[in-house]
Amino acid sequence: MEPADLTQGDFTLPGEAGYEQLTLRLAKKWGADTIRDSDGTQLSPEIVQSGYAIYSTVCLVRSIQPWAREHHDQLQQNFLMSFPVVAEKATTTITLLAGYYAEQFTVNWQDSPKQWWQVFDRTTGKEVAKARWAVNPKKGTVTIHGTVPGHKYTVNFLALRLWEEISMYNHLTNNWGDREHLAAVDPMQPAVQKQLLAFLERWLVEHKDTKVVRFTSMFYNFSWFWGADHARLRDVYSDWGDYEMTVSPRALKLFEKKFGYRLTSEDFVNGGLYNSTHNAPSRRYCDYMEFIHEFVIEFGRRCIDLVHKYQKLAYVFYDDHWVGVEPNSPRFAEFGFDGLIKCVFNAFEVRLCAHSTGVKTHELRLHPYLFPTGLKGEPTFKEGGNPTLDAKNFWIDARRGLVRAPIDRIGLGGYLSLVEPFPDFQDYIEGLLKEFRLLKSFHASGQPWVAPFKVAVLTAWGNLRAWTCSGHFTPGVELYAVLESLAGLALDVQFISFDDLVAEGVPPGVKVIINAGRAGTAWSGGHFWSNPEVEAILTQFVQKGGGVVGVGEPSALAQPGQLFKLAQVFGLDRDSGERLANGKFKFAKPEGAFAPHFITADLPAGVAPDFAKDVDGIYVHGPDTQVLAERDNSPRLAVHGFGKGRAVYLSGFKFTPENTRLLHRALYWAAAKEAKWSVWSSANIRTEATYFPKARKLVVINNAGTDETTTVTLGDGATTQAVKLPAHGIAILDA
Amino acid sequence: MEPADLTQGDFTLPGEAGYEQLTLRLAKKWGADTIRDSDGTQLSPEIVQSGYAIYSTVCLVRSIQPWAREHHDQLQQNFLMSFPVVAEKATTTITLLAGYYAEQFTVNWQDSPKQWWQVFDRTTGKEVAKARWAVNPKKGTVTIHGTVPGHKYTVNFLALRLWEEISMYNHLTNNWGDREHLAAVDPMQPAVQKQLLAFLERWLVEHKDTKVVRFTSMFYNFSWFWGADHARLRDVYSDWGDYEMTVSPRALKLFEKKFGYRLTSEDFVNGGLYNSTHNAPSRRYCDYMEFIHEFVIEFGRRCIDLVHKYQKLAYVFYDDHWVGVEPNSPRFAEFGFDGLIKCVFNAFEVRLCAHSTGVKTHELRLHPYLFPTGLKGEPTFKEGGNPTLDAKNFWIDARRGLVRAPIDRIGLGGYLSLVEPFPDFQDYIEGLLKEFRLLKSFHASGQPWVAPFKVAVLTAWGNLRAWTCSGHFTPGVELYAVLESLAGLALDVQFISFDDLVAEGVPPGVKVIINAGRAGTAWSGGHFWSNPEVEAILTQFVQKGGGVVGVGEPSALAQPGQLFKLAQVFGLDRDSGERLANGKFKFAKPEGAFAPHFITADLPAGVAPDFAKDVDGIYVHGPDTQVLAERDNSPRLAVHGFGKGRAVYLSGFKFTPENTRLLHRALYWAAAKEAKWSVWSSANIRTEATYFPKARKLVVINNAGTDETTTVTLGDGATTQAVKLPAHGIAILDA
Repeated sequence: MEPADLTQGDFTLPGEAGYEQLTLRLAKKWGADTIRDSDGTQLSPEIVQSGYAIYSTVCLVRSIQPWAREHHDQLQQNFLMSFPVVAEKATTTITLLAGYYAEQFTVNWQDSPKQWWQVFDRTTGKEVAKARWAVNPKKGTVTIHGTVPGHKYTVNFLALRLWEEISMYNHLTNNWGDREHLAAVDPMQPAVQKQLLAFLERWLVEHKDTKVVRFTSMFYNFSWFWGADHARLRDVYSDWGDYEMTVSPRALKLFEKKFGYRLTSEDFVNGGLYNSTHNAPSRRYCDYMEFIHEFVIEFGRRCIDLVHKYQKLAYVFYDDHWVGVEPNSPRFAEFGFDGLIKCVFNAFEVRLCAHSTGVKTHELRLHPYLFPTGLKGEPTFKEGGNPTLDAKNFWIDARRGLVRAPIDRIGLGGYLSLVEPFPDFQDYIEGLLKEFRLLKSFHASGQPWVAPFKVAVLTAWGNLRAWTCSGHFTPGVELYAVLESLAGLALDVQFISFDDLVAEGVPPGVKVIINAGRAGTAWSGGHFWSNPEVEAILTQFVQKGGGVVGVGEPSALAQPGQLFKLAQVFGLDRDSGERLANGKFKFAKPEGAFAPHFITADLPAGVAPDFAKDVDGIYVHGPDTQVLAERDNSPRLAVHGFGKGRAVYLSGFKFTPENTRLLHRALYWAAAKEAKWSVWSSANIRTEATYFPKARKLVVINNAGTDETTTVTLGDGATTQAVKLPAHGIAILDA
Repeated sequence: MEPADLTQGDFTLPGEAGYEQLTLRLAKKWGADTIRDSDGTQLSPEIVQSGYAIYSTVCLVRSIQPWAREHHDQLQQNFLMSFPVVAEKATTTITLLAGYYAEQFTVNWQDSPKQWWQVFDRTTGKEVAKARWAVNPKKGTVTIHGTVPGHKYTVNFLALRLWEEISMYNHLTNNWGDREHLAAVDPMQPAVQKQLLAFLERWLVEHKDTKVVRFTSMFYNFSWFWGADHARLRDVYSDWGDYEMTVSPRALKLFEKKFGYRLTSEDFVNGGLYNSTHNAPSRRYCDYMEFIHEFVIEFGRRCIDLVHKYQKLAYVFYDDHWVGVEPNSPRFAEFGFDGLIKCVFNAFEVRLCAHSTGVKTHELRLHPYLFPTGLKGEPTFKEGGNPTLDAKNFWIDARRGLVRAPIDRIGLGGYLSLVEPFPDFQDYIEGLLKEFRLLKSFHASGQPWVAPFKVAVLTAWGNLRAWTCSGHFTPGVELYAVLESLAGLALDVQFISFDDLVAEGVPPGVKVIINAGRAGTAWSGGHFWSNPEVEAILTQFVQKGGGVVGVGEPSALAQPGQLFKLAQVFGLDRDSGERLANGKFKFAKPEGAFAPHFITADLPAGVAPDFAKDVDGIYVHGPDTQVLAERDNSPRLAVHGFGKGRAVYLSGFKFTPENTRLLHRALYWAAAKEAKWSVWSSANIRTEATYFPKARKLVVINNAGTDETTTVTLGDGATTQAVKLPAHGIAILDA
């Protein structure tokens, strides 16, 4: 193998006008090949013409002010559900925007309310006939006639958005005073498309030194509805992956033309739940997502073609306005993007970026951003901060993913001037970049070794939401924690949906299926479990020797007398309270914190598993279910043989070294591959080993902020090697 | 008022042959007027002819052995669901009784399986066509053809019961070896009726000295299905109030004739849940209960008439075979019983006994029973026991109910000889009986004072299950604990069903409605909340000034985006996990364990409420909801004004002096009667005051095992009186 140049390339540096000397010094020290602007920074001609590739950001839908604010009918909009009002008399008036933030929303009166809106009696669940309500645009109200006292009413109405949410958030968070409120235009309107393409062409002409055009991102932001009372209910609704903010009468008409049926406001409002990515989606909403995705590809492609026409590269930032972009979609390649950039806190986000096909370049934006304070207001690059330690801690989180999957570039963002007083930070980043380039060179040699079986994660979304759930980590969603564990393990993981499973069965080579989440969620599967084929396919899969690992409420679907559709497979079920009169099988309680078993072998003795807020009310079906840990008679960890296969149940999950190891062992056990466990394994759970067979390199990482020693078992499954690792450290061994 | 004779009468003593002298001495000391036999004891002629009224027990359905065992076709039966079997091939065989206790059950092959049984594919939820399965009586199996591999199948079949459950329980618990297994005959069979009436008449002739015939109870036991593995799953299913064990082809045919529609096995099996009293019942099952109740009244009346024909009194014991008897039913009087006897552990059971109309005499059987050991095997009347302390503790539990509601008699059960070595016990019972007779005399003068508003408890069962849920106290059912608190409070409490509410609205005088229980249960209401009238009636009730107190998951019915139908009224709702993307209103967290408020005024400072295993995931709707206590941002205690009325929410409940006071105050606050709170109230929460206006007596009881002092506020709401009470003590004051 050709030794890689570890000092140079694959790095995007944030430049800063006024700090030209620093910019160029650090560009050299850190081996940058590209210099970028950032939100709030500019590049001076001195930097732009320094010979580095120049990378500039553009956000199209916010770009055409004040045209946007002068054309309210061309703004983005969405359905809102008015806050419920309880009728006292036969006539009830609802103020549509009561409770919502008036600077974000204005009622769309221009498109016929009678055509697009709906009024619901939420007590009966039925729609109120259109003849029974009337709008009053002056007062901003709807008056409903024939209301039943004691019943609760809501109006689904269209609201135009006056203030683009990222602009709004930054403006209010940073007290920007009278700085302009940027509005986001609706890219589906022909007039808007004309404006945007003209703007983009102008911008491309003006940015003659720019090599990389970074879109932030395409057109639609994730859903974020603000309340009037910012102190107590700022976020009425927010979801990183929801398409609520793409809707308009034009979109609905085009949808109907294409799909042959009409969506209603309630398809979007859904009783006030909207269509959170965390809940199992309806077929109709999935159709709508497909429709928007196609539109974003079509119009996005026109923008990207323009970039290419000017001999520039088009990159997309996967963080804010990515709705409809869907980097995991098989159609993502149709955009023609050259690069995908993901801001990462976690290893699963590294895997998410690496997972996207259809771009040549996968780039990470690392934390800490070069800002005075961190995300929670803690000091970073200022008095009291320790940016080097922050960088180390962010790095060990992300690095677990980087050793498992190839990433092409990394970069930083923010105000470069802030790093000037921190020479140790400058040195640390220099070393970090060498580490990154070395790992990249190993990946270039070939894929790292993985376990001799494949693992599939089964969710309602399948591959579309692979290596994420809905954006950044959210506490309380077990699958995020599971993904974070998986992201650093030597496993071949794929993501399948229930539709995939029904259409094609369990994918070839998959020996273990993970189903992790709470009842009703997209992660457990919700209504998708009502298809009996799902239960039959998975039950047979295990009967014939496959394995399942369930977390929380796997396969949950409320049925009389049963919650888990795979209860027979797991050898247990959850009582949601209806089985008070049904006896519970008594099981042998483990002595101590947990019972000895292959899967618990690396847990620290005497410490009960910490699965965060886990599920209770679990009961077992019989003596074949072995309970490895329990609390208040509810199993928390159990294993069960079913047919020729095996099932493992965990009542919850949290990302810790202990649980990562537990999950890793559970997967081996469920796959009946315990005999292969020791191959390329590292004994110390705070360390992980990755072997690159082509490069013949063994990489051992220390995921802890303390010095660690470990013993790595080599590829023969027998020979061991002792390794010492400094805090946050890495060891590269020939093997 | 005539001073009552406190030394004599209203007491049933258990006599014991061989201990004639003791029996007669204690009959005198304790002022007995009646002497009874007990299970396992007999009365000698010396006792029988001593001049006391004689009370003898009889259990009809167990009385005709060996006839019962020789006529299997005349035994009681029930539907069982076979344990589920997962198909591996296109043919699947299920052993019907696998997992069930073979000494209790035998398959009923004699009544056409194809007519009465059903086979279900539990994966699809659909019935398997009758042509697709065949029985094999020799092997005890059903073979199903065309099964789908991976699907789960069960058979609903009729099983005859070979061993009556109380006989079985006592036999196995006490290791009775080869003593005979009593079988229970089916009273709906004409041949059985003939046998039973002949037996009863013979018995009445033979028991010429018996004055009181105590039935144990009528014909049908509560449901109790035993498993084969007694160590690990003895109770496959058990419910104190379920009618599962009354069914037979004859009953189903008669039902169809009467109600005009046919019930199926699945109406009884219900996916293996059966029809637990704790779950909201179906309309069909309610019809069936009505049918059985009518039958039990009809045939029961014939038995009671026979008793009366022999100049004896007929009492019924309300503990085991009371299914179909329903002492709270408006039709209960039709039996013609002279007395009702209830064994009591708790105050709510005292109220339950007192609540029954249609009998002249309400009698309690007190604990401890005169057995060597208590219910959990702890010593009572033997080395290491302290029966006097036990008696005191049982008495203070029951006495709370006795001061609130009139009871006519009390009694004991068991082996009288056991009390001989415990003279302090003999003395304590003598004093206890005087206390009872004094309280009875106060009730005779007129009802005790109650708060100036009525309270209704709303459940699926309404008055039919007033002052109980399903038999004795069961942990994990909030309403039991609520009832136990209510049982000792100076309140006029009634019980209404959803049907009552829809038919007649909120009853006159009711100012507060309690709805307490978990989603889906009969106590919260389950599917009864799907009738929008229920929500409308209660919402309007509060709008116009009424009050509601909700515990756990009041008004719960799963709907998109909402769980509590009365969410607007309570000002809060529970997120069952689907609202991850919906923002939660931030509320002011109480400083310390709880916020100061009228309802928390008597809680011990700094101690968070103990509501046992309470509900989490509660969120509030806005600033009008005042959170008085919370945990992990989930309100545990909250108050909310709605319209002119008020709502109180408690996330759980447990019977403690603190919670009893909290509930008491919550009811006053919800009724907007805080100004009246002090009237006849006792400051010390371990004490309670009851005022008998006609007798002008103020009774203050100490519910604690420690000496207590308190201050009672008199009827003017202002004057106070200090009271000192010994442990377990009572004070009677003129007022």
